[in-house]
Amino acid sequence: MQLESWKRLEISLVLSALPWLEVYKERVQLEDGRTLDDFYRVALPDFAAVVPITEAGELVMIRTYKHGVGRVSLSSPAGLVNPGESPLLTAQRELLEETGYAASDWRPLGGFTVDGNRQCGKAHFFLARNATRVAFAHNPDRNEVVEVQLISPHNFLRAVEQGDVAMLATVGAVSLAMLALLAENGLRATGFNPETTL
Amino acid sequence: MQLESWKRLEISLVLSALPWLEVYKERVQLEDGRTLDDFYRVALPDFAAVVPITEAGELVMIRTYKHGVGRVSLSSPAGLVNPGESPLLTAQRELLEETGYAASDWRPLGGFTVDGNRQCGKAHFFLARNATRVAFAHNPDRNEVVEVQLISPHNFLRAVEQGDVAMLATVGAVSLAMLALLAENGLRATGFNPETTL
Repeated sequence: MQLESWKRLEISLVLSALPWLEVYKERVQLEDGRTLDDFYRVALPDFAAVVPITEAGELVMIRTYKHGVGRVSLSSPAGLVNPGESPLLTAQRELLEETGYAASDWRPLGGFTVDGNRQCGKAHFFLARNATRVAFAHNPDRNEVVEVQLISPHNFLRAVEQGDVAMLATVGAVSLAMLALLAENGLRATGFNPETTL
Repeated sequence: MQLESWKRLEISLVLSALPWLEVYKERVQLEDGRTLDDFYRVALPDFAAVVPITEAGELVMIRTYKHGVGRVSLSSPAGLVNPGESPLLTAQRELLEETGYAASDWRPLGGFTVDGNRQCGKAHFFLARNATRVAFAHNPDRNEVVEVQLISPHNFLRAVEQGDVAMLATVGAVSLAMLALLAENGLRATGFNPETTL
């Protein structure tokens, strides 16, 4: 059997709760010809998450309560992509709104489907270098209370170990950004030689 | 205003599609006393994702079609946590089923809520060192066609850049595992000195 796509035979909307989410039920045909009658897809808005780094090498992060998690945790500045907005613009807007910081050097790190089965929207990651404070955080029209926190990459990893980073997008965005920075200088040059390091 | 939890005032089930998902609508009270009438929570099963590394320093990954993504991509061995199963057992079972590999050295890297607002289940990450092939992949009772692929950490990062890693859990698990390995030797010792590197 070859790696190929499933075929969608039928789709119906089973829950509409816009602008927050929609749920679809699909009838699909698998690679081997069998059909599944109830494959569910959860449509959520795309979002952008930023990994802002100051010239001194500190991550600009926030502490905020997220109801999906049920507690306060350390997270990347992030937010939903508005209709008609590019993910980069979202990232720049959210960085300013949530932290009062702006950055001069932006690099896209990729877009990733949140759940391989149910979909659940797409996460767009950005690295933002030379982040500097230019305003007060203001969070217009938000249900969020946000505290800004500067943290070193080393202490970010400690926070992950201690369970203080609760969200998948945060751990994914910051880890990928740190690796991308390491890779700029060559992973081998950093000692990350798979033959000897691992 | 302080960082504190929202209060759940009411909850109702608006979609039940077990064992795949449930959707709840909550009425909640925010930090500032206001209430929201329609906060949606998507309950999905937890899953475990493994980052298996061979003694030669290669990542053991799979290529498979995921319908939530709509295409074939490179991913970590992963799967849903069965009722009564620990996430570690899930990770060990999935590694064997999807790749035919087993590993002698397991390290949990944390559990992360998939979506900070909608929840969407929890992802549990594991680093599995000394991975060796012990069997054929078999994938019992699965709707998946899977190809096993060994890839170096360097080429994994290239695959991310080229869009070949489509899922958030894969990029998160592998990036975090690589950083954790680097951190074992000290991030500074690897050249990852935030004052000079970034």
